[in-house]
Amino acid sequence: MMMADFPLATLLTDFGTSDPYVAVVKGGILRHCPGATIIDLAHEIPPQNVRWAAFVLAQSMSHFPDDTLHVVVVDPGVGTDRRVLAGRVGNQRVLGPDNGVLSLAADKLGCSEMVAVDTVALVGTPASATFHGRDVFAPLAGRILSGLEISRMGPPAGQIVRADFPQSQVEGDSLAGCVVYVDRFGNLVSNIDRACLERLSPKGGPVDVLCAGRFVGRVCSTYAAAEPGATLALVNSMDLLEVAVREGSAAARLGGGLGMEIRAVRGEA
Amino acid sequence: MMMADFPLATLLTDFGTSDPYVAVVKGGILRHCPGATIIDLAHEIPPQNVRWAAFVLAQSMSHFPDDTLHVVVVDPGVGTDRRVLAGRVGNQRVLGPDNGVLSLAADKLGCSEMVAVDTVALVGTPASATFHGRDVFAPLAGRILSGLEISRMGPPAGQIVRADFPQSQVEGDSLAGCVVYVDRFGNLVSNIDRACLERLSPKGGPVDVLCAGRFVGRVCSTYAAAEPGATLALVNSMDLLEVAVREGSAAARLGGGLGMEIRAVRGEA
Amino acid sequence: MMMADFPLATLLTDFGTSDPYVAVVKGGILRHCPGATIIDLAHEIPPQNVRWAAFVLAQSMSHFPDDTLHVVVVDPGVGTDRRVLAGRVGNQRVLGPDNGVLSLAADKLGCSEMVAVDTVALVGTPASATFHGRDVFAPLAGRILSGLEISRMGPPAGQIVRADFPQSQVEGDSLAGCVVYVDRFGNLVSNIDRACLERLSPKGGPVDVLCAGRFVGRVCSTYAAAEPGATLALVNSMDLLEVAVREGSAAARLGGGLGMEIRAVRGEA
Repeated sequence: MMMADFPLATLLTDFGTSDPYVAVVKGGILRHCPGATIIDLAHEIPPQNVRWAAFVLAQSMSHFPDDTLHVVVVDPGVGTDRRVLAGRVGNQRVLGPDNGVLSLAADKLGCSEMVAVDTVALVGTPASATFHGRDVFAPLAGRILSGLEISRMGPPAGQIVRADFPQSQVEGDSLAGCVVYVDRFGNLVSNIDRACLERLSPKGGPVDVLCAGRFVGRVCSTYAAAEPGATLALVNSMDLLEVAVREGSAAARLGGGLGMEIRAVRGEA
Repeated sequence: MMMADFPLATLLTDFGTSDPYVAVVKGGILRHCPGATIIDLAHEIPPQNVRWAAFVLAQSMSHFPDDTLHVVVVDPGVGTDRRVLAGRVGNQRVLGPDNGVLSLAADKLGCSEMVAVDTVALVGTPASATFHGRDVFAPLAGRILSGLEISRMGPPAGQIVRADFPQSQVEGDSLAGCVVYVDRFGNLVSNIDRACLERLSPKGGPVDVLCAGRFVGRVCSTYAAAEPGATLALVNSMDLLEVAVREGSAAARLGGGLGMEIRAVRGEA
Repeated sequence: MMMADFPLATLLTDFGTSDPYVAVVKGGILRHCPGATIIDLAHEIPPQNVRWAAFVLAQSMSHFPDDTLHVVVVDPGVGTDRRVLAGRVGNQRVLGPDNGVLSLAADKLGCSEMVAVDTVALVGTPASATFHGRDVFAPLAGRILSGLEISRMGPPAGQIVRADFPQSQVEGDSLAGCVVYVDRFGNLVSNIDRACLERLSPKGGPVDVLCAGRFVGRVCSTYAAAEPGATLALVNSMDLLEVAVREGSAAARLGGGLGMEIRAVRGEA
C-alpha cells in the first residue's frame, strides 16, 4: 500500500495529559511520517485498565475515515514478552499490545487480518523496558502510516488475548446487565444493547429499567424527555442502555459506578 | 466557495476529554474533509452552560485565521426541535445550536450572515437523539470545510436566541459589574470592559476596584506590578477588568466565583 | 531557511486546558503559518513553575523530528523587561522567555545558537501586558515556522538565565539525589541518571535504593519485575532513577513529592 494522501492515526492511552508522554509518542510517529494527523482518542483511561480501553476503542473507531490507524498503548505488561498486534478491524487499522485491548473491537466490527508484529526486526531492541509507546508503538505506527503493509509486519497472530468483559443475560422477561462505563456527565452506560432490547420488547414496546433493584423509569428517546433533575433511561448514541439524570449526574444521584446492576424489564403497555 | 488550502476548524464543547466523544466528532469532520486541521477551543465548559460557552467563543474567535469555522456543541436541547445555525461572524464562520451560544460573538464582532440549517436535507435524520455532535454537527462542519456555502444551507435565520448574559451598569462615579468567568489561575474576570473604564476615568486616570464591597486595589497594568501573593486589579488580555492574586488564586483568596460583585470607582489622583 | 514541507511546533505552557488560552495561541501561530502542525507538549505545568517546565522540555524535545520548534510559555515575568530567546538546541529549535526555562535543555542537548529576540521590531508593542503567549510568542513562532531565520531575530543572547535545578551528589559509596518530577502514575522521578549509576556500580552491578532513608528495593529493569502492589526502583525511560509501585502510586504509598530524598547505594553482589 502506498502512503495515504492524509495519513491519520488516533492515540488511546492511559498516560493522562499532564505529563509529556503523549507528546513524545506523537513526536515519534511524526519522525517516521511527517505530516501525519494524530487525533487524541482518549488518554484518561484509568491506569492499566485494559477492559475500559477496549470498550472505548470498540465504541469509537467506526466513526473515523477508512484506514485510520488506531494506536492503543494501555499496556500493563510492557517489558514482558507480551506480543504486539497489528491488524485490520472493520474498515480501520489497529496497533496495540496483545492483552485484550483490541478484542472487543475485533468482535464488534470483524477482523480480517491480525499479525504478531516482529518488533525486533522492525524497530530493533527498545531503548527502554518501560516506555514502548515511545520506543516500539510510535515508530511502528509511523511506518504503517508511511505505507508499510500490515501483512509484512509479522506472521498471522492466531488466537489473541480476549478482554474479560461482562455480557448481559436474558432472564425470562428481563435482561440483566451492569454498568460498564461512566462518562464525564455521570451517565451510567450498561452492556445491554439496542438489539437485545428490541428482542425483549419488539416494535418499540415499553421497557422499564431498574438500577440496583430500584425502578428508574421507562426507556425514553432523549434527555429532554425528562424534567431537569429527573432520572431517566434511554438507548444512547452507542446503542447501549444508559441511565442518566437530565442536567445532572446519575453516578452521583444513584451512587452508581462500574459493575452496578442494570435490569431491563418488558413493560405493560 | 472552493475548499480552502488549509481548512481549519475549532471545536468548543462541554464533553470534557476523558471520554472519546470529542475524538468521535473529529473523526466525523475528517470523514467529510480529510486533511482538515481541528483545534480544541475548550471542552471543559461546565455541562450545559450555554452562557459560559458563549463567553469563551466571543473572547477567542477573532484570534484565528480568517474563515476559520468555529463549531460549538454545548447543546442541552439536543433531540428537541431547537434550530441549528451556521453563519459568518466578524471574519470567521460559526456553526452551533440556536440556544444563545453564538449570540455574544455575533454582538461583539458583527454578524453578516446567519442561516437556519436544513439539517434533514443536508445530513438526513440523525442516527441518535442524543449525540448531534457526531450525527449532525460533524458532517455539517466537514461539508462546510470542504466548500459548502453557508448561504446554501438553509433560509436566513431571522431572530436568534440570545444568551442571558449580565451587563455592567454605570452608577454615578462607578461601574457595577460582576464576575463572569473564572480561569484556571483563579483570576476573577468581570464584565466591565476597557471602554467603560476609559469613560469612567478618561486619559488613564486612576480607578479603584472593590470586590463584594471590599477594596482590592487600584487598576495596574501587569501581574508583576504587585508583590507575590498580593491581590491586584488589571485590565486583562480580553480587555476586561480582572481581579487576580500574583502567583496565586483570587478565587481562593476572596472566596469568589461567578456572579460576585465587582465595582470600579473613579479614583482620587 | 525556506519554510519546511511540514512545519511542526510543540507548545508547553502552564495555561491548563479548561480555558481557551492554549487555543488562542495556536490560532495566532496558524495566522502566521497556515498549515502548521502544533503538538501539545504539556499544559498542566504547575502555574509559574519554571523549573518543572524546564525539566519537561529537556526530557522530551529530542524525540521530535529535526527542526521542530518548541514554544514555551511559562512566564511569570510577563510584562516586565525579561528577554525573549530563540535558539537552536540539539537538532531542535526553541522559543521562550529568558527565565531559565530553556537552560536545562541547552545543557543536556547543547546549544549552537541563541539570540535575544528584538520583539518590538518583529511583532510591535504587544496588545496586552499579560498574555504574551498570544501577543508575542504566537506571531514569533508562526514567523519562524514560515521561514524566518533565528539569526535574523536579534543579537546573540550571551549569558542566559539558568533554572535553579538540584543536582545529585556523590557521597562515598552512594549517590544522594531527590525527587524532581512526579508523574500522573505517582512515579517518583529522581535527578540520579543512568551514567552516574553506572559509575557507582560498573557493569550493571547491584544498586540499592532508599527513599527518605527507607529501603525501597534493588534497581530492576521493568515494572513487571515486581509483584502488583509492590514498591520498586528502576532506571526509567528518561534514563533517570525512579521509585514506583507496580499498578499503584509511589507518591501515595510513600507520601513522597518534589524534593524527597532519594539515595542510591552500591549493593552487595
